Amino acid sequence: MRDRYEIRFAGSGGQGVILAAVVVGEAAAIFEGLNSVQTQSYGPEARGGKSKSEVVISRGSIDYPKATTPDLQIILNQASCDEFIAQTGKGGIVVVDDTYVSSVPETEAQVFSLPIVKTAREKVGRELVTNMVALGVTAKILEKKGLMKAESLKQAVLARVPKGTEEINEKAFIEGYKLME
Amino acid sequence: MRDRYEIRFAGSGGQGVILAAVVVGEAAAIFEGLNSVQTQSYGPEARGGKSKSEVVISRGSIDYPKATTPDLQIILNQASCDEFIAQTGKGGIVVVDDTYVSSVPETEAQVFSLPIVKTAREKVGRELVTNMVALGVTAKILEKKGLMKAESLKQAVLARVPKGTEEINEKAFIEGYKLME
Repeated sequence: MRDRYEIRFAGSGGQGVILAAVVVGEAAAIFEGLNSVQTQSYGPEARGGKSKSEVVISRGSIDYPKATTPDLQIILNQASCDEFIAQTGKGGIVVVDDTYVSSVPETEAQVFSLPIVKTAREKVGRELVTNMVALGVTAKILEKKGLMKAESLKQAVLARVPKGTEEINEKAFIEGYKLME
Repeated sequence: MRDRYEIRFAGSGGQGVILAAVVVGEAAAIFEGLNSVQTQSYGPEARGGKSKSEVVISRGSIDYPKATTPDLQIILNQASCDEFIAQTGKGGIVVVDDTYVSSVPETEAQVFSLPIVKTAREKVGRELVTNMVALGVTAKILEKKGLMKAESLKQAVLARVPKGTEEINEKAFIEGYKLME
């Protein structure tokens, strides 16, 4: 992997973007032996329906913990898309949810519009697991890039979710993974 | 408030230190109109039973998001105490749990040894809410310092915990607040 890979999850409050980034950070550190730093910033720009959560992973040490030009953005609502898409790094990937993001501003990034929320609702039966579907998508992308095994992310999901909810979260993760195939 | 106040929660995995720091960050931003940045770093130093989670709050913008010399550390296990106590900032406060931290290395910081875990277990009935007791302690300290109203932290707790668990989490928070009185 290159020295530093920046991932940002963005959406509205309640879509679970913090937990998604925490899980990626733990997967990188605990199951892949990488370094990772996970951050939430709240300032004037973070108000108004835009919640973002970032994780930087690296083989080496991480000097600056924020994602300034994310290599991968997973964006789950329109306000976040409008605000953040332009920051995508060169050669970066943007995944947007096709229910809550109806219009994608022009960008040089590679954009995938995927039924993340619909999958959570209809295939898994609970919109609450939207973030786990998003993590499955993330796993497929990171695996394709040779950054992390999807299995590491799945293990990190299972280690982090409340006892008794492993099955539904795993199903959501797997459905997300399949969305990118 | 001075320009920047750094708080670190540290303990073992499962003690909920990430959620504690997330709640402080949200309380600062949403209920107090401050800026905040919340981080987890995972590296070689973070393995071995030491989980840490930090939040920096400020009236102004936050250039560097990590807590390098925390003004307040809430430490819930011995390994974290041994590793992190020396980093406490000048004039800083350290709160340790009296069940899991039996020996506190020499320090110039003001140290409080409090029954955080015991309170969660015995007064609230679930060790799982240890982090909410710790947040109650934090609320009292931040309130005394004039940094944040305890009510803001309590509202942030109630906004963040799973539906149906508000009552037990609020009780834990209040018992923690009373521990510092």
